[in-house]
Amino acid sequence: MSVRVLVVGIGSGDPAHLTGEAVAALNAVDVFLVADKREATRDLVTLRAELCAAVITHGRYRFVEVPDPERGPDAQRGSAAYAEAVRAWHAERARRHAGTITDEVGSEGTVGFLVWGDPSLYDSTLRVVGTIAGQLEASGVEVDLTVVPGLSSVTLLAARHRIALNRVGQPVHITTGRRLVEEYDPALGDVVVMLDGDLACTGLVDAHPDLEIFWGAQLGLADEALVAGRLVEVLPEIRARRDALRQARGWVMDTYLLRPA
Amino acid sequence: MSVRVLVVGIGSGDPAHLTGEAVAALNAVDVFLVADKREATRDLVTLRAELCAAVITHGRYRFVEVPDPERGPDAQRGSAAYAEAVRAWHAERARRHAGTITDEVGSEGTVGFLVWGDPSLYDSTLRVVGTIAGQLEASGVEVDLTVVPGLSSVTLLAARHRIALNRVGQPVHITTGRRLVEEYDPALGDVVVMLDGDLACTGLVDAHPDLEIFWGAQLGLADEALVAGRLVEVLPEIRARRDALRQARGWVMDTYLLRPA
Repeated sequence: MSVRVLVVGIGSGDPAHLTGEAVAALNAVDVFLVADKREATRDLVTLRAELCAAVITHGRYRFVEVPDPERGPDAQRGSAAYAEAVRAWHAERARRHAGTITDEVGSEGTVGFLVWGDPSLYDSTLRVVGTIAGQLEASGVEVDLTVVPGLSSVTLLAARHRIALNRVGQPVHITTGRRLVEEYDPALGDVVVMLDGDLACTGLVDAHPDLEIFWGAQLGLADEALVAGRLVEVLPEIRARRDALRQARGWVMDTYLLRPA
Repeated sequence: MSVRVLVVGIGSGDPAHLTGEAVAALNAVDVFLVADKREATRDLVTLRAELCAAVITHGRYRFVEVPDPERGPDAQRGSAAYAEAVRAWHAERARRHAGTITDEVGSEGTVGFLVWGDPSLYDSTLRVVGTIAGQLEASGVEVDLTVVPGLSSVTLLAARHRIALNRVGQPVHITTGRRLVEEYDPALGDVVVMLDGDLACTGLVDAHPDLEIFWGAQLGLADEALVAGRLVEVLPEIRARRDALRQARGWVMDTYLLRPA
């Protein structure tokens, strides 16, 4: 008994950003597993469905929701029982996925997980799938996992600004909004910031006013926005455009590169 | 008068790793400019031509060589006149490209530059094209530049090993073989090494024997090789496979990720 699992990087949402391999993988999937569709992400669910409809050439696939378990009060950052609560929550989420896979495709078939951008950067899917595979294999179902790479938002950001991420012979550092201010050092090279809910680079303006920023939001979508310039000068414009995008669509996804002057 | 310039990330060499946008871009090119074909890279020239033949649906495109200028003795690293010599060499290379563009497509047409992987990581094409565009615009020819992103070897490395580049909430640092030993610090997060001619990670084994390495060579090609494990344990195997690949094909392209234990 074996289940084929495809974790597919779907890039930006623009079908033209899919690789041929990703299109073939999408066409091979029987059941796409998706987390439950909360209102905030309904727009992304629609985009994902449209992307599949644009490139899948048959009608036999379906989306199946796997509702996330409730996060108990312990699963809040800072709680004493945090680590244990998170572990238990992850295990429960994996159990629900494994159960859904068994119910939906039995022990033969192909399950797909779609990942915006590329599965290799700040995405939990591979971790979740690893736990699911462990549970399935413990119950005698072999899991054959393939990862299909996709264009990350970082790659697309660089292309849109027509820049390399690195300066000649220099390094590139990719970090999160949460870590940026504490971690920042020009010696890190060009710094790419992801998972930044509120423009953490604001905290660098006083110490590093000459930093250049290359910012992009909703990359690959119709409301894509790009701003580049000296951080201290363009930050107000970035903040205004970011707020407007979130207002219009209900969410905003952005990333940026910081380059020493 | 205007020339359209497309810088296209062609991924690994496997046509299935091209995006739809890249396939469309390749089909739009009249003239592909390529550096002169030295023996060492003849195999890569063949791979590139095969990739184009696999996805371009017309016969009107052509490859045109632009021989690199000779590097004079001053253009050797360490020379006092090094910086100036390199600047002059780059300017001469750009002049040759601008001249070839003018001769080959006149003032109307589409020129393509193909970049293995993605143009955003450790590739000089965008810098060269910037200089060419400056020269063409000085002579009254407008340049309309588009960058088409591709799958980088880093993305493919992660997919093949079925890992994320980052650990949960941690950073990723991308650097060169030349810088690795001096720069390495576990606080950098997971470290990706590129442009490494001779496994610089060997210099980290004594101080960091517990590092995990995820190594890949000729990613996406028929002779693709993958090794993962504890650095101190798998380094001899990596070295042996790397040598065998280079022996067989005349060249080896590899990259790897180092993860603190």
